[in-house]
Amino acid sequence: MPVDSATQQAATYDDIVHAAQRIAPLIHTTPLLESSLLNRWLSVSLPDGQRHRIHFKAECMQTTGAFKLRGAANFIARLAERNALPKQFIANSSGNHAQAVAYAASHFGVPATIFSSKTISSVKAAATQSYGAQLKRFETRLLADAAVAAASQQPDTVWIPPYNHPDIIAGQGTATLEALQSLGSVDAVFAPCGGGGLLSGTLVAARALNPAINVIGAEPLNANDAAQSLRSGTIKTLSEAPDTLADGAATPCVGEYTFPYLQQLNHLYEVSESDIGYWTQWLHHLLKLHIEPTCCMTMQAVAEWLAQQDNPKTVVVILSGGNISPDTMTKLYQSDQLSKTPADKLAGC
Amino acid sequence: MPVDSATQQAATYDDIVHAAQRIAPLIHTTPLLESSLLNRWLSVSLPDGQRHRIHFKAECMQTTGAFKLRGAANFIARLAERNALPKQFIANSSGNHAQAVAYAASHFGVPATIFSSKTISSVKAAATQSYGAQLKRFETRLLADAAVAAASQQPDTVWIPPYNHPDIIAGQGTATLEALQSLGSVDAVFAPCGGGGLLSGTLVAARALNPAINVIGAEPLNANDAAQSLRSGTIKTLSEAPDTLADGAATPCVGEYTFPYLQQLNHLYEVSESDIGYWTQWLHHLLKLHIEPTCCMTMQAVAEWLAQQDNPKTVVVILSGGNISPDTMTKLYQSDQLSKTPADKLAGC
Repeated sequence: MPVDSATQQAATYDDIVHAAQRIAPLIHTTPLLESSLLNRWLSVSLPDGQRHRIHFKAECMQTTGAFKLRGAANFIARLAERNALPKQFIANSSGNHAQAVAYAASHFGVPATIFSSKTISSVKAAATQSYGAQLKRFETRLLADAAVAAASQQPDTVWIPPYNHPDIIAGQGTATLEALQSLGSVDAVFAPCGGGGLLSGTLVAARALNPAINVIGAEPLNANDAAQSLRSGTIKTLSEAPDTLADGAATPCVGEYTFPYLQQLNHLYEVSESDIGYWTQWLHHLLKLHIEPTCCMTMQAVAEWLAQQDNPKTVVVILSGGNISPDTMTKLYQSDQLSKTPADKLAGC
Repeated sequence: MPVDSATQQAATYDDIVHAAQRIAPLIHTTPLLESSLLNRWLSVSLPDGQRHRIHFKAECMQTTGAFKLRGAANFIARLAERNALPKQFIANSSGNHAQAVAYAASHFGVPATIFSSKTISSVKAAATQSYGAQLKRFETRLLADAAVAAASQQPDTVWIPPYNHPDIIAGQGTATLEALQSLGSVDAVFAPCGGGGLLSGTLVAARALNPAINVIGAEPLNANDAAQSLRSGTIKTLSEAPDTLADGAATPCVGEYTFPYLQQLNHLYEVSESDIGYWTQWLHHLLKLHIEPTCCMTMQAVAEWLAQQDNPKTVVVILSGGNISPDTMTKLYQSDQLSKTPADKLAGC
């Protein structure tokens, strides 16, 4: 079965609304959280007493610990609607997509095999297997990708892509749909950029509800293929595996489905490793959530954007997930970032 | 003004119900969370298909990041009811009580001064000051305690004790009241033991609602003054500052108000440092919460207790708080505890 089909349409708002209904039995409606201290600190450029409000959509509380279940569940549930479930699903991932496919496939009673690089953390491997999937480890990501491409030629086998597919994009867009339906008027939505599936779904949902809304992304400066692609107008691919704390955004390139949506963003911020580490410690502390550097990175974009606003804004940040290896935690806490408050950081102290 | 008054009654269930009404404007009703994976792993000794259920009361999501606000708010609100607010509040704490007093005093418009040891983490110091309190740092905890005792002799000054007071105990009991009112039938409630204020309030609330309920505590083996006190029948004091990850339970002794309640516990587990570290990494991962070793320690008690049960139990764990210094995070993640699942740990693998 071909890996992708150029005949499929990109995702629409209706696709996202239908996705939300379709995946409702599998997913949680995740909470929206706020830190009054953070709101105050980031409002220093406003007149006295006026406040920006930052609402965090806690997708770390999603089943399997990340928004990825939304896309995988929508992809599989659409096949189920058409009585087109295959004998097996396959996917290549060393991260949250692996667990999402494992869980969603199990929900529909279809065996799944995940092709990962050997660098998959023990805890992600254990979670993937605990949801009933078979796990195949390869020396490198490239070898895992080649193996999944070969396996996708087997009969009655469907490959579930991590981001570059309309059904995945529509599923990921349900997080923003939920947030905006709950909050009403919002000035901007922020999300991290890996392959662009989450940002694409975010953009479609947000712009349909409010054509004037700002949709803003963040990606690691050390893995800035999307920013390079936007500057050049064509999809660029990283030449080697990037070194970044934001491992969920280390994807080597965006996709043909996601790139046109990324071109409609108001801005894509490129975030340094030190800023990723800084905001991860602070969001852990302020929100009391165990969340990935990939989503905490987005706070640097929020801070820079809010600093340019001269009246109070209400923004949403999609906290993409909470699956962090102990090794990454060790790197994150090598130094104390909490001794400088966000107010001091913004003042350049 | 004397630090304490022997004429006051210990806390009753009615005191807790009134405390809940009194502090409602200051506090959040915190969520109850569950991990289906953890429930499954801890149910290995049950017949097939039967499951224990562990509900976590997320007091890390409380304003100021810990349950401590409940007690401090109740203490101050009772004075306000009697038009007996002083000109200043004082408290000695390097932890969550400091922030709780700072926040609650500010809410009632009364200045507060916190006496801490110089080891107070920069982030707790900043939070305490951001709530408007003055912070005085001393070389040692003993010097801070002596200074607060002297300061309590100043006119129109009230010292807010961290645990050994009926109003504090009644306030802390509101966390369990909320949880049990929400859940209905529960077999056991677990909480960590520092000075015993939280456990005392937990015991009063839980036993009033269900005299047969199990109320179970946990304290660090390295700071086991409460366990020593229970064994000897008299309050024992640690001779030196204990070395434990569970810094919220490093209190040198329990109090004259809390000790009689602790004597009514079904059990008090003493937990090793390696088990504290193990459960902290696992609860971070499973619950996606940034929570203190002090409350994660309690999971070892839950695991040991559930392993002795031969039919499914529903239990509540009070997650006391989420204020963790980067230094403690560094210690917590020195090694990978996630490579051994709780199921393997319980099987002795």
